[in-house]
Amino acid sequence: MKDAAEAWETLRARVRLANPLPEDEVDVAAAAGRVSARPMFAALSSPFYHGAAMDGFAVRAEGTVGASEIAPVRLCLGKDAVPVDTGDPIPRGHDAVIKIEDVHEPEPGILEIVSSVAPWQNVRLTGEDVVTGELVVPQGKLLTAFDVGALLAAGLTRTWVRRRPRVALIPTGDELVEPGAPVSPGHIIEFNTHVLSALVREWGGEPTRIPPVRDDPSALEAAVRDVLKACDIVVMNAGASAGRDDHTPFILASLGELLVHGINVMPGKPTAVGVTNEGQPILGLPGYPVSCAVAAEKLLRPLIALFLGVAPLARERVRARVARKIPSKVGHEEVIRVQAGRIDGGWTCSPLARGAGVITSLSRANALLIIPPLVEGVEAGEEVDVELLVPRTEAELTLVHVGSHDLALDLAGDLLRRHHPGRSLASANVGSLGGLYALSRGECHFAGTHLIDPATGEYNVPHVRRACPRKRVALVGLVEREQGFTVARGNPKGIRDFPDLLRDDVTFVNRQRGAGTRVLLDTRLAERRLDPSGIRGYEREEYTHMAAAVAVSSGVADCALTIRAAADALGLDFVPLEREPYDLAIPVDSLDTPHLRAMLGTIRSPEFRRAAEKLGGYSAARAGALVGEVSR
Amino acid sequence: MKDAAEAWETLRARVRLANPLPEDEVDVAAAAGRVSARPMFAALSSPFYHGAAMDGFAVRAEGTVGASEIAPVRLCLGKDAVPVDTGDPIPRGHDAVIKIEDVHEPEPGILEIVSSVAPWQNVRLTGEDVVTGELVVPQGKLLTAFDVGALLAAGLTRTWVRRRPRVALIPTGDELVEPGAPVSPGHIIEFNTHVLSALVREWGGEPTRIPPVRDDPSALEAAVRDVLKACDIVVMNAGASAGRDDHTPFILASLGELLVHGINVMPGKPTAVGVTNEGQPILGLPGYPVSCAVAAEKLLRPLIALFLGVAPLARERVRARVARKIPSKVGHEEVIRVQAGRIDGGWTCSPLARGAGVITSLSRANALLIIPPLVEGVEAGEEVDVELLVPRTEAELTLVHVGSHDLALDLAGDLLRRHHPGRSLASANVGSLGGLYALSRGECHFAGTHLIDPATGEYNVPHVRRACPRKRVALVGLVEREQGFTVARGNPKGIRDFPDLLRDDVTFVNRQRGAGTRVLLDTRLAERRLDPSGIRGYEREEYTHMAAAVAVSSGVADCALTIRAAADALGLDFVPLEREPYDLAIPVDSLDTPHLRAMLGTIRSPEFRRAAEKLGGYSAARAGALVGEVSR
Repeated sequence: MKDAAEAWETLRARVRLANPLPEDEVDVAAAAGRVSARPMFAALSSPFYHGAAMDGFAVRAEGTVGASEIAPVRLCLGKDAVPVDTGDPIPRGHDAVIKIEDVHEPEPGILEIVSSVAPWQNVRLTGEDVVTGELVVPQGKLLTAFDVGALLAAGLTRTWVRRRPRVALIPTGDELVEPGAPVSPGHIIEFNTHVLSALVREWGGEPTRIPPVRDDPSALEAAVRDVLKACDIVVMNAGASAGRDDHTPFILASLGELLVHGINVMPGKPTAVGVTNEGQPILGLPGYPVSCAVAAEKLLRPLIALFLGVAPLARERVRARVARKIPSKVGHEEVIRVQAGRIDGGWTCSPLARGAGVITSLSRANALLIIPPLVEGVEAGEEVDVELLVPRTEAELTLVHVGSHDLALDLAGDLLRRHHPGRSLASANVGSLGGLYALSRGECHFAGTHLIDPATGEYNVPHVRRACPRKRVALVGLVEREQGFTVARGNPKGIRDFPDLLRDDVTFVNRQRGAGTRVLLDTRLAERRLDPSGIRGYEREEYTHMAAAVAVSSGVADCALTIRAAADALGLDFVPLEREPYDLAIPVDSLDTPHLRAMLGTIRSPEFRRAAEKLGGYSAARAGALVGEVSR
Repeated sequence: MKDAAEAWETLRARVRLANPLPEDEVDVAAAAGRVSARPMFAALSSPFYHGAAMDGFAVRAEGTVGASEIAPVRLCLGKDAVPVDTGDPIPRGHDAVIKIEDVHEPEPGILEIVSSVAPWQNVRLTGEDVVTGELVVPQGKLLTAFDVGALLAAGLTRTWVRRRPRVALIPTGDELVEPGAPVSPGHIIEFNTHVLSALVREWGGEPTRIPPVRDDPSALEAAVRDVLKACDIVVMNAGASAGRDDHTPFILASLGELLVHGINVMPGKPTAVGVTNEGQPILGLPGYPVSCAVAAEKLLRPLIALFLGVAPLARERVRARVARKIPSKVGHEEVIRVQAGRIDGGWTCSPLARGAGVITSLSRANALLIIPPLVEGVEAGEEVDVELLVPRTEAELTLVHVGSHDLALDLAGDLLRRHHPGRSLASANVGSLGGLYALSRGECHFAGTHLIDPATGEYNVPHVRRACPRKRVALVGLVEREQGFTVARGNPKGIRDFPDLLRDDVTFVNRQRGAGTRVLLDTRLAERRLDPSGIRGYEREEYTHMAAAVAVSSGVADCALTIRAAADALGLDFVPLEREPYDLAIPVDSLDTPHLRAMLGTIRSPEFRRAAEKLGGYSAARAGALVGEVSR
């Protein structure tokens, strides 16, 4: 088991590279985005002749000396003064240009000027831009549109660029099915190599994906031998763990040498690294999609850069305050996907789901938090370095929501992008109470909340007052929605009301403490003097409506308290119990910032109302209305 | 004449967009890099079944209760405990997985366990990643590799992306020739539309370039009418100025309405903006390449973003100290191309050539300094905002050289990229003395210098002592090179030595004050008691060896004092006079930084020596050797 950097160094030392690196000869006009393979020197000066820099008349500067308002100089048109447009060559014997507006023609063929010009004034001299033989573009440069211009200006039409490293991607596993094929339990949709394809392209390589290969050592070895002929780099996915069907390490050993088996990174550990006897690199990347992406970043990205002769660009780092405690085991590096945003001039970040199988944690992240091997996690509020996955100016336009998850809020985030291109919404779903605490600590722009006060039955206001004692907070309506029991289709157990939850034949699935729905449950149970300890599954906590509904749809539980839309999405039955407001808590002094103006404008739009009301059980009549204000 | 922002708003208000914006339906696997056109909701949960998260045995958690070292629980293989690999579905009636390493088999068919498992332990539950019906990707998002993974995981194989806006590029002008065609004075190599093509692609559009169209109003109008059928945006280049052949504004007016003629930006002014009667935008961009690029940035970039429904990403800004005074006229915005670098923890920037025709100023720049209309330029040492053209982490690896220009230093910069991928060299050629002053002010990492001391004849050391009184500076050899007279082929005027410069029939071209070559000239003239005022052309100053040699090759002068390589590059004759050292002045306390170690390693390499000695008149025997040290 090696640290990622050590694994990379081990591999790098053993990869055999062509010298010089393979090149493609291409048209300069098509070279943008490629890496230059050779220094390019100008074949031609630019400009390659002395040309007029203005529209006017070419003259000899000597012949204009002394010209003034009282002693104009007369020039003979066609001889002393030759008409030129911008870019025209300066005729032999002339050495300056008089601007057209500085000349008048008192009689045909005669020009009069009232001020002199210096030699070479208004002339664009040969080589002003580039001189024959000068270096125009160095090797190893990612060529820009402007490099294309400079090379063409310097008389070059063909150039040499580094060949894109060819990366073969081999999905392996009996359980894999191609995207779009029918699936049944036990199948895994093979998408890792499609993610890798896109990453390889982004990193400057040329991916070739072959169809999945069975977990059969000889079929696998044959597949690898086959792609080795035409490729620089081979990636097998997966089979690098230590299970019954993990053949990758043995294949690496049989084709050359297994250099590394296991890297000290979470997720990403079950990675194998080898080289063939000819020095060609083979990577066995892990099967869990986040592990696969992390290991690819650590090994495949620098490998492609090595074959391109460039350095992988370091990601920009910012210091950010962590919104939640993140425990981490000592002994391995951990890569946490986070949503970073800029609040009140500082950066904050919220961790996303940590499971190695949660690819959406990567698609939703805009930054990574790397916890080094010897650090035992990060405390809430601690300042850490995070690596931005998007340009900083894009991350700066991220609107940060922490709080309760709501489907209509997802729709608002979608519409925000249409109405306010550039801005985006990042949601950390930690429940209503967690959101209010985050708001009070200045870790989010707003918090979605639906918290009933057990004492008064009033929604949100009392909780905001308690959770945010030092802030003036506005409550802005988003939606009203139906809460009720999600049950299996046909409601086979006949669950109708809270007392049913205590039945012996009913298994419930709960929401986490601090979730608005949990507070609602506990409030209604207390009002009815029902004892939670009598509910089977009361201790089993899910973090979203959808996750709770999934527990019902997959038979883990008979009943969950959720919004109607969650039951609808999964085709389950729903027993409506009550309507509740879901509001946005927003610091009053940020209501008039561009971020919040954009958000409020979006939820006040007819499109938002229409989209929200298409979700089951939603009313958006109060969307965007000020429904309460809590002062200190 | 409008400000650029005003011109853009005027245009935006008049462009007619399709609603919804045009879409392409594409394979999800090919969607990375495209902009999502619709919100995408999961068709399938991921995972879509409860699966084993470990290799081991599926069990009922209830049946494991109480297992311990002293009271192991026995399970019947195949009934109580079913073997599962990671990813296998959990068989009906089971609800947890025991890890393979936590089990032993005391007799065939019987498994023994010594600890219990909780319900759903080691099980990857349905919907852990994404739940059917959940929003996977919002509209208007630039899709990443991870979005591809998330969409495929959610059971989607096709998706909708915004169609790339189609941009027609029409080069116009009788003087244009295609790259690679034979050229003669008066021709202009048409490269602007190739630069625009690459920019359009970078900005997310799809360029179509047609061959150059003559300066003929009806041919131009026909060409525009033709491309309007298939394109969203039309760009004409150039013809938007006010000269004899500038037809663009009239064509815009005849096809619809001329909205803007002239924008208040330098370079970039002669720009025309119009819409057709159908609301299709037409831009007439300026002919000078830098003007064209600047105007495209101001108008074409936001236009493409508008058609894509996204916001053009703002460039990251850093505060940088300006290395030289930059005058600017009040009344227009000015876009200065600069080389920015990080020195001692702060950013500095040096302006590049300002001519609108100097495309290399864009290819060499890594940042832009925008001087607003009401600011009268920037003083040396002033702190300003610059917009980075490259990622910040790339700009941070820029090695900043300010000083004398030398061809071997260009080669060192080229090799630096090969030996140390990621690092690059940016050179501001201000002459030896300017470089030493910049070094003394901490505005560069090192300064190339070849300055003779008139009093002692010693090179560099006395000047460094005077120019950098508060720094310990090392002098490291780069090359020795030949200085002499560059003259026309065959040396028709028989110029042999300094006294010849005073002849009536000889015109000289000089170097700027502070250049090492100028100091050499003045020193030799003084030693020989020759009066500079007797030299024709002594006042005409060029900033590089090459520029001075160009003046000779184009007949502006008969003679220049330059290095041999400049004469060689242009095929001119050379009269050798003497050899001089060209050294690098480097602060002693930065000799051991990664930047300088990389640079010194590069110039000590055999490749550098070989490449430098291929240049005419160079010796690199002392390259990288410490040749002097100047202490306070």
